[in-house]
Amino acid sequence: MAKQRIYMDWNATAPLLGEARAAMLDALAEPGNPSSVHAEGRAARAMVEKARRQVAALVGAEPSHVTFTSCATEAANHALTPEFRMGRAPLVASMLYVSAIEHPALREGGRFAADRVREIPVTVSGVIDLGALEMVLAARPKEEGLPLVAVMLVNNETGVIQPVADVARVVHAHGGLLVVDAVQAAGRITIDMGVLGADFLILSSHKIGGPKGAGALVSRGETLMPVPLLKGGGQEKGHRAGTENVAALVGFGAAAQWMSEDLAERNAAIGALRNRLEEGMRTAASDVVIHGAGAARVANTCFFTLPGLKAETGQIAFDIEGLALSAGAACSSGKVGQSHVLTAMGHDAKTGGLRISLGPSTTADEVERAIEIFSRVASRRKMAGEAA
Amino acid sequence: MAKQRIYMDWNATAPLLGEARAAMLDALAEPGNPSSVHAEGRAARAMVEKARRQVAALVGAEPSHVTFTSCATEAANHALTPEFRMGRAPLVASMLYVSAIEHPALREGGRFAADRVREIPVTVSGVIDLGALEMVLAARPKEEGLPLVAVMLVNNETGVIQPVADVARVVHAHGGLLVVDAVQAAGRITIDMGVLGADFLILSSHKIGGPKGAGALVSRGETLMPVPLLKGGGQEKGHRAGTENVAALVGFGAAAQWMSEDLAERNAAIGALRNRLEEGMRTAASDVVIHGAGAARVANTCFFTLPGLKAETGQIAFDIEGLALSAGAACSSGKVGQSHVLTAMGHDAKTGGLRISLGPSTTADEVERAIEIFSRVASRRKMAGEAA
Repeated sequence: MAKQRIYMDWNATAPLLGEARAAMLDALAEPGNPSSVHAEGRAARAMVEKARRQVAALVGAEPSHVTFTSCATEAANHALTPEFRMGRAPLVASMLYVSAIEHPALREGGRFAADRVREIPVTVSGVIDLGALEMVLAARPKEEGLPLVAVMLVNNETGVIQPVADVARVVHAHGGLLVVDAVQAAGRITIDMGVLGADFLILSSHKIGGPKGAGALVSRGETLMPVPLLKGGGQEKGHRAGTENVAALVGFGAAAQWMSEDLAERNAAIGALRNRLEEGMRTAASDVVIHGAGAARVANTCFFTLPGLKAETGQIAFDIEGLALSAGAACSSGKVGQSHVLTAMGHDAKTGGLRISLGPSTTADEVERAIEIFSRVASRRKMAGEAA
Repeated sequence: MAKQRIYMDWNATAPLLGEARAAMLDALAEPGNPSSVHAEGRAARAMVEKARRQVAALVGAEPSHVTFTSCATEAANHALTPEFRMGRAPLVASMLYVSAIEHPALREGGRFAADRVREIPVTVSGVIDLGALEMVLAARPKEEGLPLVAVMLVNNETGVIQPVADVARVVHAHGGLLVVDAVQAAGRITIDMGVLGADFLILSSHKIGGPKGAGALVSRGETLMPVPLLKGGGQEKGHRAGTENVAALVGFGAAAQWMSEDLAERNAAIGALRNRLEEGMRTAASDVVIHGAGAARVANTCFFTLPGLKAETGQIAFDIEGLALSAGAACSSGKVGQSHVLTAMGHDAKTGGLRISLGPSTTADEVERAIEIFSRVASRRKMAGEAA
């Protein structure tokens, strides 16, 4: 009998939680459009509003501050805009500052012109360089107007946790606005909008065990909002037109609620598995480099380089052995190249890195089998004598 | 026993087809991200590409010309932009022309500034005024550059079929580009991109029995494309960033395939039910006005005004009686006001209109019960003596 495959690519997308699936099946049986006033419409509306409360609770926000989108990329393109409104008055952000390790959905700059986007460097540990941020914001011409800063709470490749509360203090001291990409942080560390000091927070459903096709832009309040990206009907209080994807939102909500519960215990267990994995990897190949290991990381991620094994070769080798992992972020996996995260961290990024990411249903047995596979791939690498 | 409710609001959203539901359940069990290169990712990718072929076949297009989006509103905001690319060269559309009866997703003008949007009038039958379009395009200053024209193939409120092939001839004679909103036409009339002469076509999943949360922008080729609305990862050949909503796209594809089959027979049957309904309505209330009845309409839609019954009062009355219909489009149902479609058709729009829309699972029994309900509401109207 063929051995069961091992899915260790949870940062690319998480398998759907049973709770999310069950909630979606209920929603799919509901015929109404949430904007319709008849009974069928009101039933669909109630489902969307329950999901809004569940997602808000995951990040300590008010439900009325959650604007649902079709994905985190849409939420990022919504938030990263020069045009905001404070009530009815226009408010202009003149320049966007993104950290060098952001996801492409933010690095591309959303609705800012390319020449209005600046990069903030990170340290060798993969942590945003607060001193550099302070310097850049202090040096900018004051007449330039409001700066918009976008940083991630947890890096998708390394799992390194960023000092967002400190970033917020710097940004607000310079009169700026802070957008926080919390896609890889949700469900892995406790998130509280107020404690973080984020003006806007970006969330994704499919990274926390909900379905693909749902995301959210959570705002600090209701007064200051980006101008809509999708214009049309009056859905989402006019902030996001388009019929709500009821089933996906309901699945997102169910996943958010599930992730809110027992967060610390669950991640302690995942962390123990990840630590056992890394111990096994180091024993099998003493030259393995685990990126970001010196910094605070979320419990589920292990981003490594095996000297002499190119990332694109490595991911295929692991796949053939039955282990699903990734070389860099999934969104660019089709065109595997150098990791912009490794480059930003000052590593030689030519060989690239491989990412193993675990989830709540990862088992100790899977981890032991992953170590065996790792050992085989690592030793074949020497036999093949692939150039470093 | 309480009588079963009657759902006759298919133009707002169609109940999920069993075939779409089954396909979605398969997709929801698949853990991969379609951008991942491992086996799980490739399985998800294969599902998305099958859906692309199914959706392309519904409108006689090449699969490679289908760009998936999260909804028709997103597709409209994607297509309605001054910025296109012809290969790598920029191409600018200087002005947008939309018909007066378009859906808000198009009337809002997408990425055009409000002062770059012009309206094309319609006739009293609710058909776009070709002479007016010709005149407006001929009168525009030639130095202004490329005009972009957006018209719907079938109106969402009246069901009236628009002469899009004629519109295309006029638009192309003036060197313009044509975007066709085919949301309410798909599955109801045969659509062929080539015959229509559309440069871009907009589709929605949930109007044809697929799930909410999927749409498409179908292009005539691959060379001329709008600049991306969602920037980030390289999904959809760089035209639309964001992890694909695999389950919704798969459901969209299954619905598209189902709708492609037996289209003429199915709509003949629906048309017979709609005609029986209208006959019954006219018998019950000889003063009922059925809008667009003099023009070519799709088989499923009946948009009417009962003199003396305001639309917002009427939809609640029908809802209480167990019949789900709508006053105008669902996206604005929450804020029921005058119908912009009725206004554009030159009707006194104060009373508004009520829309009954049928679907493939509508039964003759439901139609008879709907006529009974209509009779009760129509006669109560007289007793209540509500002012016209």
